[in-house]
Parts: sequence; C-alpha cells; structure tokens
Amino acid sequence: MTVKLVIVGGVAGGASAAARARRIAEDAEIVVFERGPDVSFANCGLPYYVGGEIAPREKLLVTTPEKLRARFNLDVRTRTTVEAIDRAAKRVRVRDLATGRAYDEPYDKLILAPGAAPVRPAVPGIELPGVFTLRNLQDVDRIKATVDAGAKRAVLLGGGFINIELAENLVRRGVAVSVVERNNQVLTPFDPEMTTPIAEKLVEKGVALVLGQSAARVEATADGLVVTLRDGRQLPAQLVAVGAGVRPESDLAVAAGLEVGPRGGIRVNEFLQTSDPDVYAVGDAIEVVDVVSGEATQVPLAGPANRQGRIAADNALGRRATYRGTQGTAIVGFFDRTAAITGASEKALRRANRPFRKVYVHPAHHAGYYPGAEAMALKVLFDPASGAILGAQGVGGAGVDKRIDVIAVAIQAGMTVYDLEEMELCYAPQYGSAKDPVNMAGFVAGGLLRGDHPQVDVEVVLAAPDADRPFLLDVRTPQEFAAGHIPGAVNVPVDDLRARLGELPRDREIAAYCQVGQRGYVATRILRHAGFRAANVGGGYKTYRLFAGATTPRPAGPGG
Amino acid sequence: MTVKLVIVGGVAGGASAAARARRIAEDAEIVVFERGPDVSFANCGLPYYVGGEIAPREKLLVTTPEKLRARFNLDVRTRTTVEAIDRAAKRVRVRDLATGRAYDEPYDKLILAPGAAPVRPAVPGIELPGVFTLRNLQDVDRIKATVDAGAKRAVLLGGGFINIELAENLVRRGVAVSVVERNNQVLTPFDPEMTTPIAEKLVEKGVALVLGQSAARVEATADGLVVTLRDGRQLPAQLVAVGAGVRPESDLAVAAGLEVGPRGGIRVNEFLQTSDPDVYAVGDAIEVVDVVSGEATQVPLAGPANRQGRIAADNALGRRATYRGTQGTAIVGFFDRTAAITGASEKALRRANRPFRKVYVHPAHHAGYYPGAEAMALKVLFDPASGAILGAQGVGGAGVDKRIDVIAVAIQAGMTVYDLEEMELCYAPQYGSAKDPVNMAGFVAGGLLRGDHPQVDVEVVLAAPDADRPFLLDVRTPQEFAAGHIPGAVNVPVDDLRARLGELPRDREIAAYCQVGQRGYVATRILRHAGFRAANVGGGYKTYRLFAGATTPRPAGPGG
Repeated sequence: MTVKLVIVGGVAGGASAAARARRIAEDAEIVVFERGPDVSFANCGLPYYVGGEIAPREKLLVTTPEKLRARFNLDVRTRTTVEAIDRAAKRVRVRDLATGRAYDEPYDKLILAPGAAPVRPAVPGIELPGVFTLRNLQDVDRIKATVDAGAKRAVLLGGGFINIELAENLVRRGVAVSVVERNNQVLTPFDPEMTTPIAEKLVEKGVALVLGQSAARVEATADGLVVTLRDGRQLPAQLVAVGAGVRPESDLAVAAGLEVGPRGGIRVNEFLQTSDPDVYAVGDAIEVVDVVSGEATQVPLAGPANRQGRIAADNALGRRATYRGTQGTAIVGFFDRTAAITGASEKALRRANRPFRKVYVHPAHHAGYYPGAEAMALKVLFDPASGAILGAQGVGGAGVDKRIDVIAVAIQAGMTVYDLEEMELCYAPQYGSAKDPVNMAGFVAGGLLRGDHPQVDVEVVLAAPDADRPFLLDVRTPQEFAAGHIPGAVNVPVDDLRARLGELPRDREIAAYCQVGQRGYVATRILRHAGFRAANVGGGYKTYRLFAGATTPRPAGPGG
Repeated sequence: MTVKLVIVGGVAGGASAAARARRIAEDAEIVVFERGPDVSFANCGLPYYVGGEIAPREKLLVTTPEKLRARFNLDVRTRTTVEAIDRAAKRVRVRDLATGRAYDEPYDKLILAPGAAPVRPAVPGIELPGVFTLRNLQDVDRIKATVDAGAKRAVLLGGGFINIELAENLVRRGVAVSVVERNNQVLTPFDPEMTTPIAEKLVEKGVALVLGQSAARVEATADGLVVTLRDGRQLPAQLVAVGAGVRPESDLAVAAGLEVGPRGGIRVNEFLQTSDPDVYAVGDAIEVVDVVSGEATQVPLAGPANRQGRIAADNALGRRATYRGTQGTAIVGFFDRTAAITGASEKALRRANRPFRKVYVHPAHHAGYYPGAEAMALKVLFDPASGAILGAQGVGGAGVDKRIDVIAVAIQAGMTVYDLEEMELCYAPQYGSAKDPVNMAGFVAGGLLRGDHPQVDVEVVLAAPDADRPFLLDVRTPQEFAAGHIPGAVNVPVDDLRARLGELPRDREIAAYCQVGQRGYVATRILRHAGFRAANVGGGYKTYRLFAGATTPRPAGPGG
C-alpha cells in the first residue's frame, strides 16, 4: 500500500522533505502545497540580488515545480494554501489562490514546513507603501524596484543578520543607509563586544548606526517616507526595511490543536513529530532543543531546516531518524568581512546562570610572514570545571568561517579546550599557522584552567572600584603604548621586565596586558615567579578595544 | 633547585619547547643549541621566498636568538653542534662551529629536536654545484641566487609537497620547470586519482610532469647541468632541486644508544620520552603513532612539531602531558588551488588490509547561486561497519582547507559519517551551502551504509571483464553526454527514466551515473523500485575523470 505524504510549505525544509521522501519511497504519493509562486528559492541570497551581486533573478530559483515533478515525481501545487487540518479525518482543507477553489486532500502523514513570518512592530505607519519586510522573491522584487526607481535613503529597522546584509547591498547601490536597532548592539546573537568591528565597519562605509533606538512612527512625505524615532529624531527615506525578527507560522498548527511553545514554535519531539504522531513539523516554525543549554529555542536557519526536512521524511515514511538539536551556528558577511557564531553566547550563559570562563585571541588567519594575513578576534566560552566548549564567536576577515566551523564540530563532539590544543589542522603559510588560531585559543584556555596562565577579564578590571582596581601594567613597546593604552596603565616592556621588577607594587594586584595576550602571559609568569600577585588581561589591548568600542556611543555616519 | 634543560635544535619543535619551558618554569636554566645560524625560521615559507611572494628575507625569520634571550631568558647558541650525549654523566659534547672549540654542557633533562635531513638519492652527479635541497635559509639563498642569476630551466627531482610549491614559484619567476617523480603520481600521501587535478594544473601552467621516472645521473655542461633519466631522456637545467623525502637526523640519538625505529625515527612514548627517561625527542626526527592505523610512522610536519615541543617541555619539567599521535593532516597550494588530506588514504588502508568504503562528492565551495563558487572534489574514507571516518582528501579551490579541517576534527573526535550528516556548519551563500560539502559527503556515505544508496566504485566498473561489466547508464542530459561520457554508456536522462524503463536490461547489473552522483542516486532508486539490479557510480562522471586522468599518460608540458 502506498503512503500518501502531504507537505505544507515548499521552500527549505518542505522541499528537502519532499525530495528525501521520494528518494526513500519511490511509490509514495507526495503532494507539496506552497502558498507562494515559488518553491525552494535562495532565501539567503535575497539581499545580494538587491545589490546586484546575484543576477539575473533566475539564479534565486533553486528549482521549479516543473523540475521537481520531472525529477522527483512530486505533485507540487503553488499559490495554494492549507487552511485547516482535520486530524481526525486525516485530511487538509486546501484553497487554490488562483481560482479560489477549496478542496480537501487526505493524508497518511503530514509534514508542516510553513516557515516564519517577519514581525512588523506595532508602529503607526508600518504598513505604508515603501515599508518592506524581506522574506521571499516578491518582497525582494519590491525592494529592488524601489532602489531601481532611485531611492536615495533607506532606513533599516533592526540590526539583525538580514538587515546587515541589506545595508551592505544598499550601500553598494549608492543608497544612504541608516540602521536603527533597539538594543545597544547589532546582531544580538553575538556578545556586544564582538560586534564592535561590525559596527565600526558599517560606520566606515557610511552607514548611520543608531543603537538603543526604535521607530515611533512612519509617515508619508512628499519625498517618500520619514521615520520618527522615539527620541524624536527624524530619518527621511524612500525605503524602509523592517527586520524585527520572525514569528513561527504556527496558526494552522494551533488551530488544529497541536502543541506549541510559549513563543509560538510548534512543539516536536526528537523525531520532529508534533503532538499528533501522524503530523511532523520542520524549519523556522518549530521549537528545537539548544544542544548547549538543553532548552527549547527557535532558530530560523536554512541549514537546520534542510536537515530537519530529511529527518521528518524518514520518520514519516517509517524509519527512525533523530534530530540532535541546534547549536545556532550562523555567519554573516559585511563588506568582505565576516562574523560567525556557534553554541552559546556569554550573555546566554549569564542569563542561564551557567558557570563559564572565556578567552579571546587575536590571531592572523594565516602565517604572518605570508602576504595577505587578515586579523580576526576569536572568543571561546567553556565550562570552568570540565573545559567543555560551550560556544565561540569570531569576527574578522578570511578564515573566520573555518575556525567557527571547526569549533562547531568540537561542540557537537563534546570536546574540551584541551582538545582544541591538540587539534591537527591544515597548515601551509597561505592557509593557517603551525599553531592555528583554534590551537591558540585552546592554549590560552588550557593555561587558564590549569592555573598556569591566570587571567582577568578586561571588563572586570575596568568595572572595579578605584580602590580595588589592579595596577595596570602595559608590557608592550613604548611605541605601542604611545599609540593608545588603557587609561591609567604604566608601561614596562616585557623584555625589560625582569630587570625592572623593583618599579612594581607588591601590595596590589597587577593586571598585565599587551596587544593580544601573549606578552602579557609571559609577563604574568615572570611577575608571579617573582612573588607578585599578577594576572594577564585576557586578549590584551585588542580585547579592551572591543569593549571600549562596544560601550562608547558611536557617531552616526553621513546617512543619519 | 633549578632544573637545567638542554635543547638540541632551535627551529620548530626546539623553539616551541624552549618558549614553553620558560613560560612554565621561570627559574629553569634553558640552553638551546642550534647548528645553523638561525632559530625558528619560517621553513614552510621558503619556496615562496624564491618566487618573491614572501619578501624581504627578514620575514622568514620568525625570531632571533637575541629576541629569545630578551623575551624568554633563553641561552641560545647558534652555529653550535651537539656531537655526543653522555647519558651516564648527563652531559652533551658541544662544538662551537665558529671557533672550533669543544666543551661539555651538563643537563638534567634533554630535549632532542634535530629535525630531518633531505635525502640525496645515490645518483651520480647529485652533489654537483647547482643541485640543491631545500631545508633552511642557506639552501633557499642558494636557490634564489641561481634563479636571480638567470636560470632558465629547472628540474625538480621528486613530486612531493615542497617541490610542488617550488614548481609554482619557479614558474612565477619565468623558469621552465620539469618535475620528475618516480611514482605514477605527485604528492604520494594522496590517492592517485585525487592528484589528477594537481597534475592537470601543473601541465596547464607549463610544468613538464614526468611520472614513473627518476634521474639516472646529473652532469655538468657548458650551459649548467643535464639530468639524464632512467629512460635515457635528457633534461637540461641550470637548477636541480632534490625533493626525495627526508631522513630523521637521529645519528646523535643512535650513537647515544637511544632506541630508533626501522626507518630511523627516534622512538618515544606518549610523553615524547625516549628510551632514556631524561631524554625527550620531538619533531621530524621522531617516530609517532598514526591515530588511524595505530602504527608507528614519521610525519615531518610543522604543526605536530610545534605541539610536541610544548608537550616535551611540560614532561621534562615534571608535568604530565601526552601526545595523541598524528593523523597526517597536510595541505599544499598550487597556483591558487588547494589539495589537503587528513587521516588514512585509500592506499594506506589497502596496504593495512583494513576494510573501508569511500565516497566522492564534487560540490561547489559555496552556494552555486552566489558568484564565485569554486569546484572541489572531496573523498571520504570510512569504516564499513561503524561508519567511523578514517580519512579524507580534498582538491579544488577555495574552501578545501575548511572541509578537511572539519573532517580532521571529526576524526580526532572518533566521529562517524552519520555525524557528518548532522554537522551544523556556518551557512551564508558566500561561505557554504545549506547542505555543506561535509554534510553532502555524510549523506552519500550514510545512504551507502544504510543500503538506501547502493554504490559501485568507478574503478571497479572499469576493471570488470567485459562479460561481467554492468550496463553503463548515463542519466545526464544529451548535451552533457555528448560533451563526454564513459565509453560504452547509454544515455537516458534521469527525468525521462520513469517513462523509459522498458529500454533497460533486466538481466544485467546497471551502473547508473551522472555528473557528480546526485541524479545517479535518484536513478538508482527509481531502477531498484522497478525491480532492476542497479547501483550508482559513486561521484559520477567527475570521479571517472579523476581516475581516467590519473591512469592516462600525461603529455609533457613545454618545459620538457
């Protein structure tokens, strides 16, 4: 007896589920309903189509209903919505949007892949023409048409992944861009200090970055639109893009009585099965388990959606495949630079009251003696007892993606910072270093946990009351010191330190620092052997700059 | 009581050991003897100095004896050899090469980091001026001087990593290069088919590649040198570089009665301790354990040497740190392309009679719809029972290093191909794909082991006697078929297959193939469901091309 599989949604998770289902069950009857006109389009490429990096438009169409029919013998019905699920009768109520005709479609197994809808904040004027969200090809067509028509200024509400990508692409098109973000940082999955280089690059490229603000209202003007912020500031624009997060499209599931979580995500078990065993759900609409925290979370990412599609298809067709949960691995490019994250952030760990330690390293992406080495900042969070890696963030140029991927695998494998020390990675001078950035992070973290390398976090030093503040010792060269140092620091270069110990206080903690932490480590070892109470400021002056940049109000660029 | 640590060799492993020793023991007395004039130079950068990519020469000096003294309070004595170890008296016999003076230096703990010396094959004329090996700055100075003096032709004996890099750099300098390799492939750690793109690129760039040959003699001529091959062919040159492998510099250890392995590597335990518990050894001179095979091996690589230096220093100073063995992770660039390897090769597994299966995938390094996607071939070897990953090789453009690093970590973690399927890696269209190349390799391998995706290796199909040869079914488009196909194949595009099953034989095995394996997989599923005996040719036509290229004699380029 053939199985009848109905899939609601034909983009990432739905299309993956359908193709997988066909590969494992040539005789299954497979129907895919997609509300929009397109299936399986390149949603992650949409901002780059606005900028012209991706052209022509056809490139955004990963496949078509016709191709899916020919290749996979799939019955794909686009411009068709599923309005209701009759779980008792095992059928869905369907409406053909072109004709208005409604009909029932029975199923043996149902996979829900409805995705998530952009949230439009409750701001007066947010529904005006010229205010866009960016989810599908129709959205991007409208945005691109507005730019093509000569939009001079754009206001992007929200500093998330898509709006950062959109900002870059609008700048490429000569549009003056303001990014308004209600938090004090862009890219809120990242820790704030790690977003400093991103904010600086945006400002350098002329983007006006308005942090800690949000829109009060949007109004039409003779010249387009004007966004009024809560502080009264007015930003004129011909294009407003709303990137205020997404909301799982779980209404259909809710109406059918399926369990959903507190934030609206459809509840599934490890087999991606909903509270109805014949109904599965995948993608941006579901709640998943965060592999680091063990908590339920919602992570709208294409990679997990695709893998979930496969797994749900397997289970729907009688196999047993499990989804392991997500670790939130994500990456964003901004003007030829890269920020990437995997696992838990520091702020997530603090919210969960989970103990952790952290290290920062600032290596070059390959051997410094080979031309073209690009700097990166790499932050690794780990369990203070076991050394288990909890999360990592990288920001910089080339090679950031590689290091975050390597650490993502280490997290998946349950590895520790001691494992990072021993990793045997590719080395030739144009690809890495004999001691890879990942190894370096492991060395620094391992040294910390073993007690060889006492470290103090720069923000702890800076936040200490004056009376308790450690003696700040800058062990860089006088030239480096002169070019900028932490206020209050005293300069004794590390190579002179053994001879100049007499200049240092024995009655206070000493916080030594250098540029990235290596010389500070040597200095700390020298000082402690000589009986001083000393620790190294983790990640050195470069890490200080990340924090100083993140907490200093940033000037608005020319666009604002 | 302070410890006196003596280190023999001051380049990769020795310099790492010395710096580490100082960091963990500020009061230790640390003496480093280095035969050459330099410590810790950029040995992996030497070929790029010849080509001019790295300049000026000072960039090759990672540090100097003076800097090591100032920073780490190290007693570094260059141009000084250690001639003997008196283990009973715990002292070494030292000679200052500048003055000829000999003296004894006592030690509490001794770390040997003498490295490995290039092998000069026993070929008449191999010691002539103009015949070089490449190990240190003095060698590279001589090679560069020869090029600077106008060398027009070079013959590189051996197609290993250094000579491939040297070939690229000599081509960059306008030198006509011949590479003579006695095996039927370059880069012998790789499987032969994976070197096809390397060989093709070398030939494309004008390098004359002479495989299966070696030098019979070298002679001086009026115009420089001439290399006569065993087949009588004569290659004139002004520069001959010998890259015939290296020999551990274990004479000192042997003379001191320390155990060495059959290939001359100093025997060490997991603490990098030799057969004398007060003597440690690291780097290219030692035998290490191959983590995949469990066998002793010698792997002259900078990364392991550096990590070993740290570990030996820890143990020499009373800690307990273990070296986990090596997995032979290595990478080489050639004309903006990359080949990388980790773990066991297929030929190593065959030699060891170890059961394995393998998959080939040919993904783009990032989403195809984003401009600039570069092709790669990725081969993954795994245990047929457990799915444990045994090795991987990649060749292509950007992103090869990342995937091999990811798989290197997976091997270190003892992960399986099922873990590759689930890996959550960075995805944005300029960095990867929602289904990353690593995921894809996992899907193909997992499908094979689960029996969903029966695969046959292309070389097995090709080697079958005509009577047993399967029916070769090319399921690509007629256009692709016309542009090149496996001899004897019949073309039925996959999208037509369901309708044209009647054209296919029911009495023979069918080997379906497409370009990279994806359509062949769909075809195989369709065929098997319809009752045919079918399997997919793993990796498709692109894998066939790797094998066809590797076994077809290649024309010599203009240089030969």
